[in-house]
Amino acid sequence: MSVDLPLDGRRRAVIENITPRVDDGRFPVKRLAGESVDVEADVFADGHDEVRAVLEWRGPIDAEWHEQDMARLAPLGNDRWGATLNVPSVGKYEFAVHAWVDHYATWQHDLEKRIDAGQDVTIDRQIGERLLARTQEDIRDLRTISATYAVTVDPVRAGFSAWYELFPRSASPDPKRHGTLRDVMTRLDYVSGLGFNVLYLPPIHPIGRQFRKGPNNQPSTKPADPGVPWAIGSEAGGHTAVNPELGTLDDFDALVAAARARDMEIALDIAFQASPDHPWVSEHPQWFKQRPDGTIQYAENPPKKYQDIYPFDFESVDWRGLWQGLNDVFRFWIGHGVTTFRVDNPHTKPFAFWEWCIADIKRDHPETIFLAEAFTRPKPMYRLAKAGFSQSYTYFTWRNTPAEMRTYLEEITKPPVTDFFRPNFWPNTPDILHADLQQGGRAAFMARVILAATLSSNYGIYGPAYELMDAMPVAPNSEEYLDSEKYQQRTWDLARADSLAPLIATLNGARRDHPALQSNERLYFHDVNSDWLLAYSKSTADGSDVILAVVNMDYHATRAASLELDLNALGLPADAPFVVVDLLDGATYTWRGSRNWVSLDPEVRAAHLLWLRRP
Amino acid sequence: MSVDLPLDGRRRAVIENITPRVDDGRFPVKRLAGESVDVEADVFADGHDEVRAVLEWRGPIDAEWHEQDMARLAPLGNDRWGATLNVPSVGKYEFAVHAWVDHYATWQHDLEKRIDAGQDVTIDRQIGERLLARTQEDIRDLRTISATYAVTVDPVRAGFSAWYELFPRSASPDPKRHGTLRDVMTRLDYVSGLGFNVLYLPPIHPIGRQFRKGPNNQPSTKPADPGVPWAIGSEAGGHTAVNPELGTLDDFDALVAAARARDMEIALDIAFQASPDHPWVSEHPQWFKQRPDGTIQYAENPPKKYQDIYPFDFESVDWRGLWQGLNDVFRFWIGHGVTTFRVDNPHTKPFAFWEWCIADIKRDHPETIFLAEAFTRPKPMYRLAKAGFSQSYTYFTWRNTPAEMRTYLEEITKPPVTDFFRPNFWPNTPDILHADLQQGGRAAFMARVILAATLSSNYGIYGPAYELMDAMPVAPNSEEYLDSEKYQQRTWDLARADSLAPLIATLNGARRDHPALQSNERLYFHDVNSDWLLAYSKSTADGSDVILAVVNMDYHATRAASLELDLNALGLPADAPFVVVDLLDGATYTWRGSRNWVSLDPEVRAAHLLWLRRP
Repeated sequence: MSVDLPLDGRRRAVIENITPRVDDGRFPVKRLAGESVDVEADVFADGHDEVRAVLEWRGPIDAEWHEQDMARLAPLGNDRWGATLNVPSVGKYEFAVHAWVDHYATWQHDLEKRIDAGQDVTIDRQIGERLLARTQEDIRDLRTISATYAVTVDPVRAGFSAWYELFPRSASPDPKRHGTLRDVMTRLDYVSGLGFNVLYLPPIHPIGRQFRKGPNNQPSTKPADPGVPWAIGSEAGGHTAVNPELGTLDDFDALVAAARARDMEIALDIAFQASPDHPWVSEHPQWFKQRPDGTIQYAENPPKKYQDIYPFDFESVDWRGLWQGLNDVFRFWIGHGVTTFRVDNPHTKPFAFWEWCIADIKRDHPETIFLAEAFTRPKPMYRLAKAGFSQSYTYFTWRNTPAEMRTYLEEITKPPVTDFFRPNFWPNTPDILHADLQQGGRAAFMARVILAATLSSNYGIYGPAYELMDAMPVAPNSEEYLDSEKYQQRTWDLARADSLAPLIATLNGARRDHPALQSNERLYFHDVNSDWLLAYSKSTADGSDVILAVVNMDYHATRAASLELDLNALGLPADAPFVVVDLLDGATYTWRGSRNWVSLDPEVRAAHLLWLRRP
Repeated sequence: MSVDLPLDGRRRAVIENITPRVDDGRFPVKRLAGESVDVEADVFADGHDEVRAVLEWRGPIDAEWHEQDMARLAPLGNDRWGATLNVPSVGKYEFAVHAWVDHYATWQHDLEKRIDAGQDVTIDRQIGERLLARTQEDIRDLRTISATYAVTVDPVRAGFSAWYELFPRSASPDPKRHGTLRDVMTRLDYVSGLGFNVLYLPPIHPIGRQFRKGPNNQPSTKPADPGVPWAIGSEAGGHTAVNPELGTLDDFDALVAAARARDMEIALDIAFQASPDHPWVSEHPQWFKQRPDGTIQYAENPPKKYQDIYPFDFESVDWRGLWQGLNDVFRFWIGHGVTTFRVDNPHTKPFAFWEWCIADIKRDHPETIFLAEAFTRPKPMYRLAKAGFSQSYTYFTWRNTPAEMRTYLEEITKPPVTDFFRPNFWPNTPDILHADLQQGGRAAFMARVILAATLSSNYGIYGPAYELMDAMPVAPNSEEYLDSEKYQQRTWDLARADSLAPLIATLNGARRDHPALQSNERLYFHDVNSDWLLAYSKSTADGSDVILAVVNMDYHATRAASLELDLNALGLPADAPFVVVDLLDGATYTWRGSRNWVSLDPEVRAAHLLWLRRP
């Protein structure tokens, strides 16, 4: 027995190391509509013949492939070729590299040298004629063809979005009445006025009765306890129903329409788990784990028991039915105008499910966005992004010093991570009231939202808890809120004089007005001579918009230091004066050169957010 | 239309980033017999269940796969798993990673926590019994299976070899008589006495008559001109014949046997090109490019013409026949006891050919070694190694300062390069007499061979030109030898008093006695306060053998400086005295700590080659 010959051994060109590629090409690269993909490859052949390379690609609606020349990249001799693939539309793009030995170009090149040397080229001219006649077929026949790589092109808001989370149950102006979706409609102007473009609601479905939780996660004792929105399903319906206490599907449709009228999306929280009262428990018992005593396995983290929640059994013999059922949940809400989904704990469902489900939905609805709420280890977190999630919650909340923050951002805002992972920074969530906020007072609340909104082009807050600086944990050393809205209705005084609403509106305005803040691509950290100050800039590709932020991450003491600006990164000449405008308070400063003095008193201001005003 | 479901969506484990892998697994990883492969992978699953991973592998003669447990690697929480695959035999190994959710282990783990918490575990015990019954089938059914990766395991001498190249035509003791293979046999004791274990001969085949070259690459004018050995083929035969002037195939067989009796291999130079007189020109005209005037295309580098050489046309319609014909050349010589091939200009033949040819031959003869003589750009050079060449000529000759040498070595002696590329360092070849040797005198000849022999576990020299310090170029600024043996017979006085033979014998003896010099794996550069001194160490894995070299790369001036030894890399305690023995002259020094003074006068000694004598 011998080793098989290749299909056509006359394919002499070699294609190696195509970039960008995620996990050897196993997963698509991600881009936003209107961006581009700088495709590069090592291309060469044996001998000294001329080589050509082209990028073959097709867009979401193309039946045919397009061809685009690739060019040798400098430095010469390193055999690197490149082409820029523009991806204007949402959907799936594909690309491959083709390369071949270009006999005609080789001949032409050699002919010039022969003529220069005064040689007789009679035969060479005949060779050239032969080649010219054969070139077209040769090119097709003897092309080396790379693997095909995919690009998922998402809508722009997958890369630039500001999320506001609220509990509809607390949207009622009357503390004695459960809030409704109609109440949320009356909040839209407030949220829109803050500058957010995604309003995200915890699960809006009917809530289970069995083992319902009461305030502060205690067993419910009163029939009026509204229960936990993540204990999904009752006799009123499951994942495609609206909790009757919140209203009707018509109310939801009206809310979506009213939000859209304000250029806002309604994001739904999709939590794939069921209360014991979910209709699927009886309709699809095979979707749950059966215990030997005939009961259904509830959620556990032994020895803790969560009897109000039944997880799905993804190893069910009917896994295909389960996957389709869950897929249908997304499709149902897409049918009601939802394009943005926050997915609860996706890391506790198989990665293969997400890969299939998101690809299947985005095939029909490429405008959809999926935010992964997976506070898990780095590799599963990244795997979810590779599997298709458009955005991801991050470790931002637990990066509490400038050094930690810089290290983390330098990981997640550079390739290869940026080819598949888009961070969404949250200074708080209904599950996470960080010690910094518990102990840092107003300064911490200001600094953390400024960091989130300016470090990451996607960010969100859980309000009104955030702007009203709710900082009371349920217990010492706990990150859970006291009297959390997860278990009960709360009433918020949005008009409070100390609300951070004006700061947040200013931040969102700066994000809207300054394209530098709409991407993480050119985030750059500047050295600063203090362990507590974080200095960073963001710029547009053309340098026309530059924002420089300096944040005091010590919420208890004034910190002053000299900045060592990288003037090159800021597009500034050496040792010349320049004017910066603080977008937070309108103050104007004239600075000069790389070294400038900054002092931040947390009682007065948490940060400078400086726009470099061009002369 | 929707996206296809996976074959079995219940496979919940994920396997990512398997290492080592070359070009996404496109090519095998290389190892030597007796070495091992530290296989690692990211392995995890959704949720909190226990995961297991195993390494599946099979060796060259295994029909069945073996299974070996993988273990979680520290630091915990990074989901990295590993196992060591031992590869004792030459040939092709394959490995893959399998992973799955281990329900039984999860159950066991949870049960302990339940018992600790004093919970009733009656039902849990029943669950455990069910699981135990099902475990074996589950494990097989629900395994995630990675791609399969290959390992080429070469004989030890692929990684540790000392080559001596000589022209048989010059082996005659009588200047008036053409040397023969029988003459070469009388040289074996000399070469073996120098400590080399590969004797490499330029092509030994009949040499073409048409357009034969005479001395110094001028057109031949005398019938007695022996011609260029690389112009292969005459009426006496082609690539499987012996040049009658050298002797017979029987003589060759005798030479191979005599070499083997001295633990030496005869390496043949395989140059895939033909003289106009090669039998294949008439037998297989389709293997060559036909010109419109009916002639065959000779080799060119326009406007230069090499009319004595016909290259093969690898785009021939009969490429399959050509490939098989060339493959048969190797097989013919393997049949005559040759296992080591130096391949001439492999980068001017298709990479796909080499990949097929070497794999096909190594399948039957895994003990064979192929050295690529490809002085080309880095990526084609690496591609040949990936395609199967066991060793490669390098840019060593053109790395002429300590800084250049360090940078280059740090590239080629670390992963990922070491997974596919094995350097073979040559201070000279019949084609390359570097300016350093032309101008550096005896000091340069000493230093360059010391560097080659101690930086790289594979090295070679072209002799007797090297040990007799032939330094005369054919023209100024040329790297070609004057009166090169490529074109004429030379006579060498091996007994010359100034021969470097004793130094070379000492070097090869040090390489034989010191396992530290038999691998590049733990090559480490130490800082030295001079631009002209290069300091480096090599150690065995267990630290039992440590060699420290300091070489003066200025061949014209004494250079002295303080070494800043990394004592950790040398396995030495801080600030303690230690004894070093210079293997080149037996001198002994007592040094202390990291800073030690070195002075090298090129008139006296080119280098220290220090063995760290353990107390």
